[in-house]
Amino acid sequence: MTKKWVYGFEEGNKGMRMELGGKGANLAEMTNIGIPVPPGFTVTTDACAEYCNLGQKYPEGMLGQIEEKLAELEKKMGMKLGDPENPLLVSVRSGAAVSMPGMMDTVLNLGLNDKSVLGLAKKTGDERFAYDAYRRFINMFGDVVMGVEHKHFEEVLEKAKETKGVELDLDLGAEDWKKVCEGYKAVVQKYTGKMFPEDPKEQLKMGIDAVFGSWNSKRAIAYRRINNIFGLVGTAVNVQTMAFGNMGDTSGTGVLFTRNPSTGENKLYGEYLMNAQGEDIVAGIRTPKHIDELKKQMPKVYDELVSIYLKVEKHYKDMQDMEFTIQEGKLFILQTRNGKRTAAAALRIAVDMEKDGLIDKKTAVLRIDPNQLDQLLHKRLDPVAKEKAEVLCRGLPASPGAAVGKIVFTADRAHELAQEGEKVILTRTETSPEDIEGMNAAQGILTSRGGMTSHAAVVARGMGKPCVAGCADAVISEEKGTLKIGDTVLKEGDYVTLDGAAGEVIKGAVPVVDPELSGDFAKLMEWADEFRKLTVKTNADTPHDAEVAKGFGAEGIGLCRTEHMFFEGERIKAVREMILAETLDGRKKALAKLKPMQKEDFKGLFKVMDNLPVIIRLLDPPLHEFLPKEDEDIKTMAKELGVDEQKIRDTISNLHEFNPMLGFRGCRLGIRYPEISEMQVWAILEAAIECKKEGVKAVPWIEVPLVGNVKEYLVIKKIVDKVAESLGVKRGKDFWVGTMIEVPRAAITADEIAPEVDFMSFGTNDLTQMTCGFSRDDAGSFLKPYVEQGIYDRDPFQSIDQTGVGKLMELCIKNARKINKKIEFGICGEHGGEPESVKFCHRIGLNDVSCSPYRVPIARLAAAQAALEGEKK
Amino acid sequence: MTKKWVYGFEEGNKGMRMELGGKGANLAEMTNIGIPVPPGFTVTTDACAEYCNLGQKYPEGMLGQIEEKLAELEKKMGMKLGDPENPLLVSVRSGAAVSMPGMMDTVLNLGLNDKSVLGLAKKTGDERFAYDAYRRFINMFGDVVMGVEHKHFEEVLEKAKETKGVELDLDLGAEDWKKVCEGYKAVVQKYTGKMFPEDPKEQLKMGIDAVFGSWNSKRAIAYRRINNIFGLVGTAVNVQTMAFGNMGDTSGTGVLFTRNPSTGENKLYGEYLMNAQGEDIVAGIRTPKHIDELKKQMPKVYDELVSIYLKVEKHYKDMQDMEFTIQEGKLFILQTRNGKRTAAAALRIAVDMEKDGLIDKKTAVLRIDPNQLDQLLHKRLDPVAKEKAEVLCRGLPASPGAAVGKIVFTADRAHELAQEGEKVILTRTETSPEDIEGMNAAQGILTSRGGMTSHAAVVARGMGKPCVAGCADAVISEEKGTLKIGDTVLKEGDYVTLDGAAGEVIKGAVPVVDPELSGDFAKLMEWADEFRKLTVKTNADTPHDAEVAKGFGAEGIGLCRTEHMFFEGERIKAVREMILAETLDGRKKALAKLKPMQKEDFKGLFKVMDNLPVIIRLLDPPLHEFLPKEDEDIKTMAKELGVDEQKIRDTISNLHEFNPMLGFRGCRLGIRYPEISEMQVWAILEAAIECKKEGVKAVPWIEVPLVGNVKEYLVIKKIVDKVAESLGVKRGKDFWVGTMIEVPRAAITADEIAPEVDFMSFGTNDLTQMTCGFSRDDAGSFLKPYVEQGIYDRDPFQSIDQTGVGKLMELCIKNARKINKKIEFGICGEHGGEPESVKFCHRIGLNDVSCSPYRVPIARLAAAQAALEGEKK
Repeated sequence: MTKKWVYGFEEGNKGMRMELGGKGANLAEMTNIGIPVPPGFTVTTDACAEYCNLGQKYPEGMLGQIEEKLAELEKKMGMKLGDPENPLLVSVRSGAAVSMPGMMDTVLNLGLNDKSVLGLAKKTGDERFAYDAYRRFINMFGDVVMGVEHKHFEEVLEKAKETKGVELDLDLGAEDWKKVCEGYKAVVQKYTGKMFPEDPKEQLKMGIDAVFGSWNSKRAIAYRRINNIFGLVGTAVNVQTMAFGNMGDTSGTGVLFTRNPSTGENKLYGEYLMNAQGEDIVAGIRTPKHIDELKKQMPKVYDELVSIYLKVEKHYKDMQDMEFTIQEGKLFILQTRNGKRTAAAALRIAVDMEKDGLIDKKTAVLRIDPNQLDQLLHKRLDPVAKEKAEVLCRGLPASPGAAVGKIVFTADRAHELAQEGEKVILTRTETSPEDIEGMNAAQGILTSRGGMTSHAAVVARGMGKPCVAGCADAVISEEKGTLKIGDTVLKEGDYVTLDGAAGEVIKGAVPVVDPELSGDFAKLMEWADEFRKLTVKTNADTPHDAEVAKGFGAEGIGLCRTEHMFFEGERIKAVREMILAETLDGRKKALAKLKPMQKEDFKGLFKVMDNLPVIIRLLDPPLHEFLPKEDEDIKTMAKELGVDEQKIRDTISNLHEFNPMLGFRGCRLGIRYPEISEMQVWAILEAAIECKKEGVKAVPWIEVPLVGNVKEYLVIKKIVDKVAESLGVKRGKDFWVGTMIEVPRAAITADEIAPEVDFMSFGTNDLTQMTCGFSRDDAGSFLKPYVEQGIYDRDPFQSIDQTGVGKLMELCIKNARKINKKIEFGICGEHGGEPESVKFCHRIGLNDVSCSPYRVPIARLAAAQAALEGEKK
Repeated sequence: MTKKWVYGFEEGNKGMRMELGGKGANLAEMTNIGIPVPPGFTVTTDACAEYCNLGQKYPEGMLGQIEEKLAELEKKMGMKLGDPENPLLVSVRSGAAVSMPGMMDTVLNLGLNDKSVLGLAKKTGDERFAYDAYRRFINMFGDVVMGVEHKHFEEVLEKAKETKGVELDLDLGAEDWKKVCEGYKAVVQKYTGKMFPEDPKEQLKMGIDAVFGSWNSKRAIAYRRINNIFGLVGTAVNVQTMAFGNMGDTSGTGVLFTRNPSTGENKLYGEYLMNAQGEDIVAGIRTPKHIDELKKQMPKVYDELVSIYLKVEKHYKDMQDMEFTIQEGKLFILQTRNGKRTAAAALRIAVDMEKDGLIDKKTAVLRIDPNQLDQLLHKRLDPVAKEKAEVLCRGLPASPGAAVGKIVFTADRAHELAQEGEKVILTRTETSPEDIEGMNAAQGILTSRGGMTSHAAVVARGMGKPCVAGCADAVISEEKGTLKIGDTVLKEGDYVTLDGAAGEVIKGAVPVVDPELSGDFAKLMEWADEFRKLTVKTNADTPHDAEVAKGFGAEGIGLCRTEHMFFEGERIKAVREMILAETLDGRKKALAKLKPMQKEDFKGLFKVMDNLPVIIRLLDPPLHEFLPKEDEDIKTMAKELGVDEQKIRDTISNLHEFNPMLGFRGCRLGIRYPEISEMQVWAILEAAIECKKEGVKAVPWIEVPLVGNVKEYLVIKKIVDKVAESLGVKRGKDFWVGTMIEVPRAAITADEIAPEVDFMSFGTNDLTQMTCGFSRDDAGSFLKPYVEQGIYDRDPFQSIDQTGVGKLMELCIKNARKINKKIEFGICGEHGGEPESVKFCHRIGLNDVSCSPYRVPIARLAAAQAALEGEKK
């Protein structure tokens, strides 16, 4: 028995994706649930495979089956391919099981030739339309099937317009198009040495051959290799009757959404145009009508559309985006797919559908793209006003949200003006920890240098402030007080607007819309929490951030970076005094000034997080970060501290490092200057004790950064033990101790570290830097091309490099748990709020993820989805 | 039956180290082979353990056994502990199975009290000697047994000298010492509240208790923890008769080596002093006599000594270093141990002993410390002249050997003067690749900054040139042309001498001695080659280095750093032209100039290494290393290339990186600028083809640096494949392709890289930097204290961090071999010439090690030892 190589649409279903390809299976599914799809058939992917195997020959029986299906189709439509009276026209499209650019796309209007074009003209009563369709077909077929470059056809068309002295296609008439058709055919002959095929059956066969051939085109092979697409045997070919919406006043075309894609409202939403083709709606030359008007214009068609959309939504159990064509009063559905929607709409649709019993809670949770939630949590530009806005330039979308304010060029000035009630945008080449206060005072931050994980970006996300970073076209001169973009020069006080999600800098003040969190949001988050296994914490350094995060559902602080506290107000003086001190006593004196302030910092956090764990990381950055860079600042510092300028310069020079990332920082500081760690541990534990007296249950987790060797950790742990003994508090009851895992060596030797820690927290920013050998600050020059070339699928600083860094994390967890089952594993890098990374963390068995406050809901949702996806397997 | 807690020396042997401790077992062994050791007994380590278990109480029977052994000893010696006529004096010493500082060391002269001191005075006829011995005993016993600080005794002694108005101990007489003894006893009473024990048996018991107690002292516990000493139960106590070499003219003391420790000559070597104690020889106040003179002075004793030394050497099968004492004509051997020797002596002794059948070849190979070979391969300072030399300061011993020359401060000047026939020492704050030519022209290199793996150090070792690096006390001003060390200011033309092995900078010109390689060296290397499994290659960038290395037995080039070739003469211009080019064409034009030079470079290497593999690494360092730093150099470059100064400055600024280690370098260069790799591959493969025509068999291995992801490697491999196809040569026949493993991610994903490579070479310098998170250039500020505190046992840049970086290497090899068994694994970091690292490489299954030319013999020997040590297990 011959194998079945060809399926009519009515013979398949959506489960046959591997045989029929995605497109074919979908057309079959629609046909089978009674949707009026233009009829057609699909040649299977197996046929393609066999065709390639046999050296570009059809397998036995295939040609016969095609002819058989074609005959059925002609019968069904009452038309014949190539018929000079009533010609059947078809489209030929490729379609593999996975959508795949790089293969042959589409040939429309197949079946036209010098005779059938007359039939089309007669039937439509529109000769111009017929020859226009014909020349389009020759062009498309000549290009994608016969390999003639498009520009050669273009030349003919240009000449035709020139001859006639017109500029637009619209000005060409039927006779002109006729001549163009002749010219196009001559082009085909000139560049291929072959006549354009007049026989429609030969056209069809050539079309199918071209689709099959494109499966092994260089581009398609490259695409599969780069995207790791394996296990597919070939592409299917879909042959489908053409439907025309431009055959007169009873024809038309439209698009619709089964619910409102902006709000999610459960009401048909869409628009249409009579006597038009699909591209006319997109082109926007004629204004389409609202779908409701169709009810008056073609009540029967409208009613059919309504019953179809209800059926389709019920069948696919999701909001659908459909394309339809009315050909001489007859409705065809060309496509239906899950509709794109705003975050607000997505939430409303999911919650409504669950209420209506269309889907269950799990499905509702899986429906929402966690990344989309970001939209809901930040101010955004008024969509209408934005359309008119003048975008000055684009940078990286470093932190979402919209911000409007006056430009200022220094952190001090930002602070000053904000105190006077002004809204400001802090505009700097790059920010440094000294700018924290100014960043906090600003509405948004704009930098001309640095990437998605630059200081400005990380801090802004933490604060939930809009930030456009690395805006290379913006020339910022802090000295001159100018922001130059192209020819525009802005000065302090000029208004700009930032769109952080789009990375746009806009001239002037654009109105913004406040975020609104609906009840649907709360409901969906509640469901997510039912399913997720991961605990979601936040990275927060201030009570304010902690409060915001708690509002978003954070279940603790996963990372408090104590260094940020060192920059505020008077503290920086004491910090600098400590760094300049040449003796232990000098350092201790300076540290003694810091201790009460640190203690208050921690009490603030403990109070917000009452009864929830607060991971406090001991001092981490290299000391030179606390010293000024600019000449003027050095002078000011010398005066303030009453020390010699030269001494400051010498200290800066002594602390200079070639590769600060791999230098004197992290626990290395505390090992060389134990008094620093001591001060911090005292402050943490005393704060906890005092909180308890005030009825607050503090749960401090002390975290040792940059450990690479268990012995480093033990040096610091000993300091903790000593302070705890002095204060009469107990590890495992009053406080906990653990380590960051950010140096590859720590991951590799996790079994040695395991017995000594209560928790391990992956610092995936640094772990990625060291494991991949990428400096976050310098990677711009090669990492973007790397992602573009597919060397890395995604920027490993944005989404965990699962096959590299991730493998190391898995190894770490496995080896550590073998020794100590009680360890709590977390992650506190930027990745903790990125959905794919959160899911990965779930899969490899982490207990917690921690992210910036505004990403907490995203992490909660991603965690729930990870758990549900795990269940399925 | 009671357990045996106490062993007489005659009851044990050297196999009983666990029970008797190292010292006790050795004393027993000597006693048993008939060496006249002062008699005594050992209390076992088990006794110590039991004592600790019982809460500082003696286990049953122990005290009785001690008394029994003491009685035997008294009988044997004809003396009695505490006897007022003929008192027995003993020493009490601790001794665990592993030598361990931190425990109680020694109490001498135990048994003296107010009565027995009279007996000692009478017996020796020297009252002063007796009371001097007594006060020493009270001091030592008071200090180490009773815990009185030494300074309190010192105060009494100072006062006694003051009272008498003298300055030296020698000026105090018998009566004075008598008073000092009284004073010392008062000190003991004052600070302990107890009388000094007069009862010798109580003294003995207290001494034993103190040894036992010291086992669990903080220092001893810390020492065991830091050094990972486990499985020991306690320390033994050795009680031994005192022998005095200062009891008159028939008494004396001496040390001897059974062979000459400088040359290895098989002839008794040593010296002695009559009527003296051991410390008198060390003190050097009296000049000791040559051992040959003893033959005349005490022929019987001399003959006995000769027969003993022959017996001892035969017994221990190694050259011995012995201490002896003659007490009133009777010879005692106090100690024998393997003698320290020079490298030359070590070789001669090993080869001689093998010839005499005393040891076999394997033992001979295992006898030599590979590190010691370094002495033989370099010039060294004339030992006599060196004693008088004025050492100005000390830096790091970055590259061994002695160098004398005139100071110069720039590479250009070094080159100039060298061309005029001058010997120069290149003296710079730090060196950069631009200085290569000057370094090559200099006798030696001195820098004030940088560590053991700084540019200066690495390049100097490669060239086999002496180098003192990171000499912090030397203030070098290239601008002023001065080298300031303390008060000494040296200028260009002043002579200095460097001792690279000691890291010393010496004023003036000190005579040097040329290295001499004896036949013994060749013989031992030949034996080593019989046993080793590892192939030993060399890191060499020039035919000269390659030739030197081949002379030392290198079996190929394991790393040729092509960038070093980029600095010579005219090339740097073309390189800079390429960097400044803004277009592909511009870059190609510049590269075309480089290609013929590169080709000649490679031909030179292939010719030296005829038929041996040559691993050529494609361009690795960040491009900014090729650009000038100094203002003046930028100006010169602008003129030479005819480009705008500002353009050079802009390029430098564009290429600036925060962490260049993790920046735009390695294969990242070739991926962004494929034309660079292309040029290099063309040069390599054409060079190989041309060599073949000249009858030379070139074996090029093309190495891709800094790979972290197989896809990076594949991009470069594709370039190689393309060039190979054009030239008609075949991988696996005409050339090979592989990768460095230096990014942790590469090691982790080795299974993905494995199918695509012929070889993998561990670049352990960078692998250590990234795995441990240590910047080699900056680690000075914390790594030295880390090693001192035992956080790392050794500097991981000097000896592979086996438990961290090494674990990653093992993982890499295991996973890669699973996929591709044919991969050749090598190492080309600095570690490839360090014996412990070489042994580790053998154990984890590497095929090759590669090191700088002058370390090739060291690697060969270490490889042989690794193989032999592996056999034993």
